[in-house]
Amino acid sequence: MAYADLYERVRQKTPVPITERDLERVLVGLLQAESLWDLVGLCDVPLAALPPLLEELQRDGLLERRGDRLTLTPSGKELIEEQGWVPPVEARCPRCRGRGIALDEAPYDELLRQFTEIARERPAPRRDFDQGYVTPETTVARVALMRRRGDLDGKRLLVLGDDDLMGLAAALVGTARAITVLEVDPELVAFIRGTAERLGLELDVREHDLRDPLPAELLGAFDAFTTDPVESYDGCRLFLGRGLSGLAGVGGAGYFGLTRHEASLAKWHKLQSWILEQGAAITDCLDRFNEYVNWPYWGEMRASRWLSLEAAPQAIWYRSTLFRLELVAPKAYPNEPFTGSFEDPELATT
Amino acid sequence: MAYADLYERVRQKTPVPITERDLERVLVGLLQAESLWDLVGLCDVPLAALPPLLEELQRDGLLERRGDRLTLTPSGKELIEEQGWVPPVEARCPRCRGRGIALDEAPYDELLRQFTEIARERPAPRRDFDQGYVTPETTVARVALMRRRGDLDGKRLLVLGDDDLMGLAAALVGTARAITVLEVDPELVAFIRGTAERLGLELDVREHDLRDPLPAELLGAFDAFTTDPVESYDGCRLFLGRGLSGLAGVGGAGYFGLTRHEASLAKWHKLQSWILEQGAAITDCLDRFNEYVNWPYWGEMRASRWLSLEAAPQAIWYRSTLFRLELVAPKAYPNEPFTGSFEDPELATT
Repeated sequence: MAYADLYERVRQKTPVPITERDLERVLVGLLQAESLWDLVGLCDVPLAALPPLLEELQRDGLLERRGDRLTLTPSGKELIEEQGWVPPVEARCPRCRGRGIALDEAPYDELLRQFTEIARERPAPRRDFDQGYVTPETTVARVALMRRRGDLDGKRLLVLGDDDLMGLAAALVGTARAITVLEVDPELVAFIRGTAERLGLELDVREHDLRDPLPAELLGAFDAFTTDPVESYDGCRLFLGRGLSGLAGVGGAGYFGLTRHEASLAKWHKLQSWILEQGAAITDCLDRFNEYVNWPYWGEMRASRWLSLEAAPQAIWYRSTLFRLELVAPKAYPNEPFTGSFEDPELATT
Repeated sequence: MAYADLYERVRQKTPVPITERDLERVLVGLLQAESLWDLVGLCDVPLAALPPLLEELQRDGLLERRGDRLTLTPSGKELIEEQGWVPPVEARCPRCRGRGIALDEAPYDELLRQFTEIARERPAPRRDFDQGYVTPETTVARVALMRRRGDLDGKRLLVLGDDDLMGLAAALVGTARAITVLEVDPELVAFIRGTAERLGLELDVREHDLRDPLPAELLGAFDAFTTDPVESYDGCRLFLGRGLSGLAGVGGAGYFGLTRHEASLAKWHKLQSWILEQGAAITDCLDRFNEYVNWPYWGEMRASRWLSLEAAPQAIWYRSTLFRLELVAPKAYPNEPFTGSFEDPELATT
């Protein structure tokens, strides 16, 4: 079986730095997936690498595709067996969905109920702002994690971009010293501000484009930040850099998500190296902590065109890893206008 | 309240790079802890920094100590309140103890039962080999995590030092392509080898001191490694370096534990930077995944002398964070005899 050749052919058809391990992940994913949506949700490989990979598998007679249905051929199964590849064995705790945090008992059962109620009225996600929000369970679990790490109660929190409504969820707890939300979308700003006012929550909500420098009074004014960056390398550095600029110093913490769908492990590596260079240590890295509600514009996103996706996803497929960093040796963080790029060949949902 | 001065005084009394955040962690820990053992289990601060810290708190009249009992004075509580510090709010999932992995259902309920039975006869941990093993739940949860990441079934696993009996637990699953255990302690080698033979498990067990280079036939021969390093900076690099030497290339994975008890966040930062320089990305970082069974030589360890600990711990207090790395851009890893040091001012349990 011409396996090495297959990998080389795929590699030449995509600018995404995939590895042979990615080929393995896709092939064993195909043993478990019945559809394209299943596969992208399962296999932890950049979406942008899937079209050439699936094409070459079809060309070699290893895979058949009918609409969104995918079926390995006997030769496909034979290749997997020859390589000794076996699908991952899931063992996710059913009670906490693998997050390690109990949301079905006090105090988070009640917070989840309240937050879900509030979030019901939220504006629909907008493609022009790269929106796509997480489930209420994810938002509340993030709040719970911040409280476990001592980053919310009595602390000053900066939320950079807030389609996940982290500001409202954190404010509902009522124990933070201050919470500031920066959000570019005026409709979302109005919703968050209006909801906070209606419920009498202390929340400073500002319309702000993160490509612009942070307002001077926010520099060094926070104990923690949370953000869900645009996943180009420059985009991640922009969002995290603004967060770092907001931290008061040693011991300051940052929370952010990073996917395997739009970021290769090579990008993870580059970004983690940058984070460490900024004087922060990584204290948490929680696979699939963040689960995203399917957004209405799925049919317009790049990956749908690339993969000729025909039907809407039926279940959650887009997930990300939650990171926490803590400042050990702070540096001077530049607070300049953004001159980088939100573009990157690995981006797939824009 | 002379809080900045307190921090400076502690800093001058210890070579451990503690931060003001560490002072906060100890003080809010004291709001929840009733004894020294509670405190060290709660507060995520290097043990070596605690003696000077507690002394200065006592000197300032913020803390009273009677035997192993610790009580904050009214001034101590006042300082904490003035700073707005609040203890972390725990929300660990009771079903999986926060690991995110279900051990109480198939297939891991049965593996846990079998492994616990086998581990009952294990030799007691030896101080001269820096031994101290994790709970059976931890060992089995690690195996489950490896299977979730596709690093065990059909793969070749290298276990570097095995007082946790990872080799036996992984072999019991019966799906690995090969498992090799390197262990320095002849008594433990005999136990692991004897048990494997008795149960008819495929396991290559070798007596080997990791300070010596890896045998040539093990270089580049594995898909994954697991180890629980000595926590001096050099010790960590030694254990991880041997693991990296054993990996076959891109996509190879490594599992290891790192504590907050014997490694400051500054050491975490330095070690993580080194890992990234080796061409590996960090894919998982799971707080308190590893729980250690209390070892019999607790009274002889440094920290017991430093803290004049009087009674044995009644509950698990020593925990570590489980990391997974994955090779993105492998380098040539030296396979030389160890010339570094297992000594380090942060080490506390030797």
